[in-house]
Amino acid sequence: MSTAASVDTPATQDDRDLALYAERIDRPPQLKTAEFSREGRLRHVIFGGQYSVDVLEDLAGTADKIRLLSKSRDGQDFLLRLLAHKRAMLYFTQPSTRTFLSFMAACQILGVTCNEVRDPTTSSETKGETRFDSIRMFSSYFDLVIMRSPVARLAEACAYLMNDLERSGNRSVPIINAGSGADEHPTQALLDIYTLQRTFQFVSPKDSPAATKLDKLRDEYPDLNTGLAGKTYGFCGDIGRGRTVRSLASLLSLYEGVSLVFVAPDHPTLRMGDDLRQRLDRRGVRYVEVESLESPINGVPAIETLDALYMTRIQKEHNAAADDAEFAAIDFANFKLTAELARRMKRYAPILHPFPRDQHFGEIPPEIDNDPRAMYFRQARNGMWVRAALLAHVFNVDHRVARCYHEHYGDWLAGGQA
Amino acid sequence: MSTAASVDTPATQDDRDLALYAERIDRPPQLKTAEFSREGRLRHVIFGGQYSVDVLEDLAGTADKIRLLSKSRDGQDFLLRLLAHKRAMLYFTQPSTRTFLSFMAACQILGVTCNEVRDPTTSSETKGETRFDSIRMFSSYFDLVIMRSPVARLAEACAYLMNDLERSGNRSVPIINAGSGADEHPTQALLDIYTLQRTFQFVSPKDSPAATKLDKLRDEYPDLNTGLAGKTYGFCGDIGRGRTVRSLASLLSLYEGVSLVFVAPDHPTLRMGDDLRQRLDRRGVRYVEVESLESPINGVPAIETLDALYMTRIQKEHNAAADDAEFAAIDFANFKLTAELARRMKRYAPILHPFPRDQHFGEIPPEIDNDPRAMYFRQARNGMWVRAALLAHVFNVDHRVARCYHEHYGDWLAGGQA
Amino acid sequence: MSTAASVDTPATQDDRDLALYAERIDRPPQLKTAEFSREGRLRHVIFGGQYSVDVLEDLAGTADKIRLLSKSRDGQDFLLRLLAHKRAMLYFTQPSTRTFLSFMAACQILGVTCNEVRDPTTSSETKGETRFDSIRMFSSYFDLVIMRSPVARLAEACAYLMNDLERSGNRSVPIINAGSGADEHPTQALLDIYTLQRTFQFVSPKDSPAATKLDKLRDEYPDLNTGLAGKTYGFCGDIGRGRTVRSLASLLSLYEGVSLVFVAPDHPTLRMGDDLRQRLDRRGVRYVEVESLESPINGVPAIETLDALYMTRIQKEHNAAADDAEFAAIDFANFKLTAELARRMKRYAPILHPFPRDQHFGEIPPEIDNDPRAMYFRQARNGMWVRAALLAHVFNVDHRVARCYHEHYGDWLAGGQA
Repeated sequence: MSTAASVDTPATQDDRDLALYAERIDRPPQLKTAEFSREGRLRHVIFGGQYSVDVLEDLAGTADKIRLLSKSRDGQDFLLRLLAHKRAMLYFTQPSTRTFLSFMAACQILGVTCNEVRDPTTSSETKGETRFDSIRMFSSYFDLVIMRSPVARLAEACAYLMNDLERSGNRSVPIINAGSGADEHPTQALLDIYTLQRTFQFVSPKDSPAATKLDKLRDEYPDLNTGLAGKTYGFCGDIGRGRTVRSLASLLSLYEGVSLVFVAPDHPTLRMGDDLRQRLDRRGVRYVEVESLESPINGVPAIETLDALYMTRIQKEHNAAADDAEFAAIDFANFKLTAELARRMKRYAPILHPFPRDQHFGEIPPEIDNDPRAMYFRQARNGMWVRAALLAHVFNVDHRVARCYHEHYGDWLAGGQA
Repeated sequence: MSTAASVDTPATQDDRDLALYAERIDRPPQLKTAEFSREGRLRHVIFGGQYSVDVLEDLAGTADKIRLLSKSRDGQDFLLRLLAHKRAMLYFTQPSTRTFLSFMAACQILGVTCNEVRDPTTSSETKGETRFDSIRMFSSYFDLVIMRSPVARLAEACAYLMNDLERSGNRSVPIINAGSGADEHPTQALLDIYTLQRTFQFVSPKDSPAATKLDKLRDEYPDLNTGLAGKTYGFCGDIGRGRTVRSLASLLSLYEGVSLVFVAPDHPTLRMGDDLRQRLDRRGVRYVEVESLESPINGVPAIETLDALYMTRIQKEHNAAADDAEFAAIDFANFKLTAELARRMKRYAPILHPFPRDQHFGEIPPEIDNDPRAMYFRQARNGMWVRAALLAHVFNVDHRVARCYHEHYGDWLAGGQA
Repeated sequence: MSTAASVDTPATQDDRDLALYAERIDRPPQLKTAEFSREGRLRHVIFGGQYSVDVLEDLAGTADKIRLLSKSRDGQDFLLRLLAHKRAMLYFTQPSTRTFLSFMAACQILGVTCNEVRDPTTSSETKGETRFDSIRMFSSYFDLVIMRSPVARLAEACAYLMNDLERSGNRSVPIINAGSGADEHPTQALLDIYTLQRTFQFVSPKDSPAATKLDKLRDEYPDLNTGLAGKTYGFCGDIGRGRTVRSLASLLSLYEGVSLVFVAPDHPTLRMGDDLRQRLDRRGVRYVEVESLESPINGVPAIETLDALYMTRIQKEHNAAADDAEFAAIDFANFKLTAELARRMKRYAPILHPFPRDQHFGEIPPEIDNDPRAMYFRQARNGMWVRAALLAHVFNVDHRVARCYHEHYGDWLAGGQA
């Protein structure tokens, strides 16, 4: 697997194509975000650093509206027409059933027609076609490319290609990164954030915008507020290789006064990596690393301090040769949630997991599934809503969603808030 | 392949999940059907025993109406909107092109958007995800799961899972069994029955509800009546392993006064199994087993006594090691339909076959294809209509089909019958 | 791979099925075209010889209209409804990502619902199903079969099967050949022709029907005219195995006064084959064969004489054992386009390539991609438009496209031409 940066003497046109953009790729994120935007909205969605708090709140608002409109046939029909003239290519050369189906469903909610290429090697590649020629083919037939690839930075390079084509007057379409090598998976972070946003609205499970259970919770937790700011977030398991942990932690650091707790074995493969550590240090985020869900933090067991807990799977399929032997010495019981531990969590603290969970490891046993704080199945459905919101944003129809929503619910909302 | 019943010490969570429902699965069918219904209509479609004659006649009526509405662009447009807000998952871990495409087409007729997972091993399963977690993922994104699996009873277990989720206030969707292990394939039985229902309406091939050829046939067959009751049905070939034979014979036994003729080699693998025999005995159905299409029944060769003939393929891919040697001694010519045999069949007796037929075995040679009684190609199209009817039934829009049909054809029907 | 003609003693039903049509297949093309038409329009699209200049101009006109209607949401909505009641089967047992996606997109533009079978061996075939039974299954569920197969003439045989079914009152659907063995790929030829038709309209890149750059070009090229007649077309590379070269050259020979230049190594595998030579001779088309893009023709280097250049990939995956050694002696540099050569081409001469191009061979280096004459990416998009036009033609809705187009653009066109 060749990354743009590591190529010294590009041997194939594919290598030369990536090398062409190496310099632009290697810039710090803040210098790049503008290129992936148009008129204040995301054009290409490549890495988590593109999201501001404003964008995150905006997407959550659109996701909420799409979700509520989907409850009536009229709302569904409105949504189904919204992007019925758009055709998407889901180009998934790295397999992921869950991400794939979530994007499919998101497209379908808005009427987008889906196409897919999922073989790692398409017939054209075996005939010597470059990746860029493939992408240009897709952009000839379709209006959007959602891509997932084992090649690091390929999605970013494709976004630059599209920008260059646009500049020279050629056809150009948005690129959405659905997972690129080991580094970025920006829409997964979006659904994790959206699940927290929904949970910390403290509205009823029926999603009535007027009802709230916050008042009751405050009897027990007087300092509890809505929103993501000021809360303590726990991450447990494979922190080192958890792409989703890195992305979510980075996004949470955009919010005021958050604290992060990382619970992982003290092993270089599994504990927090230097890149995340530096990012958090740079932003002045408070965080602590412990080796058990029971480790004390300021005298209180970690599990009892959390406003939200993000569990993860040990990604053993990525083990290096040395890891297997060293992992045998680790007591992984410290990184599994049990019913007893769950009982000690705050009454409102949601349990998340990027899924799939591992039935053989058992980081979350099924008896917890019926706990009302278990959010991991709803996370999947949230992913669908927020990806639909992202599509509406990219294609600049989110204001139409908002207008339709207010026509449907406006009076009732006004009444409910009166 | 583990069945719920055979698991003593469940080793994996998948085993434990099935074991959890083993007791409910092992109940007699009549105790289970109510759980798979809601307000008098099928909620999950799991096994053939759920169909009553009323349901079968109801589905046939809806299938007829969908078929006739599909003849006009107005009718098509009505149908295409009917379930346009629904998304289906076709989860086929046991391959079947024909069943898969038939369900696809049925969905598409009613506007349902289709998604598919057809790999035996999805990427999530290799990461340790349980089958139940996969099904819950599908139920998060989609409104219906149509599943075909090599694991016996898995569809039934998933239906219980959905019921339990419903009961605990979680999202729950209908499950349709498109083939589960060796035991059940309830929608195949439906299309076989529907083909017989259509044939024994004795309306013209043009499907004009006013025309009939029954009057003319009665000159030759004075006792001939419309409908499935009182007729003699032949089954020929691989009776022992023919899941479709077992299902169709069971459904036919719901009708008054039917007689069944089973034509199969006298070999334990190929002749009727004990389960079907007991079921027929319990219901008091008349049946006879013979070893050739020419064997006499009450002095008349079997082939000449039949009101309908259901041919099947020898499923040699399921041969056990011992079978190959023993089968070599069987004269399979007795289980092939020839043009000469077809000539001796009743003039109206339809020839069915669940397809695919085997070109190497030749149970139905192509020269019979042009015989007007050859129904096996029309069977495929009937399967599409009746599966569409089933979807309309499950989603409770069949009454809308009926209303639209009567608006389109009401006056003409009245005139035609006047 | 068995062709109908080469089978002497058909061993399987599949062989017998093809043998059944061998005599009809072996007739000269002009005796066959009528069978693939209905009321003056194509019913089945099987081989390039079915296109007349009238049909080609008609399809180009429809493709232009579909393309322009697609620029507005109103036009898109009109198109999306046009064939929303049709379901297509894309039966691609020979892989081709590009052709497959192009047909998908074409279907989607007109609202046709797509289904696919892409496995070389479907589950039914492994159970002994014949190809004809598979095709009849598809025709039971769907309204159109678009097929690509490694078996020569299979598409043609299927078209005869459909005709025979039609004659006997059975269900029958159109067959479109998307590549059949080594011989025919009639829709690829269509998109090559359409790209030339668009280019030689000499309208602006913005596709305004009123603007033209022909006047300016005539200052430099006084004899230049619109249209395909009277021009010189170059073909370079793998002429011998280039199915697309053979098809395009044949279609160009329908136009008055064209000259063809074939640039290929002097090797029996790579230079023009006898079949194409005879066809051109029979039609009295002027052509010349040379061994380099620089070879002089009437004293002028070939590259400078061309009105259009069609580059191709060396199809090394089809090399015979002997080829590899013999090819090593060939200087392939003569069959690559360079920036320097491109500079010497006529200012308006389009560069085409059927794609994929081979990054390792480098017949067109990427630095030419930004040349305004590089049409090979636009070719892909043209393929989508002209295939949509073909579907509209086959389903007899092209006149509705024309009517809608004139309602949208009629007044503006009239004004623009005034």
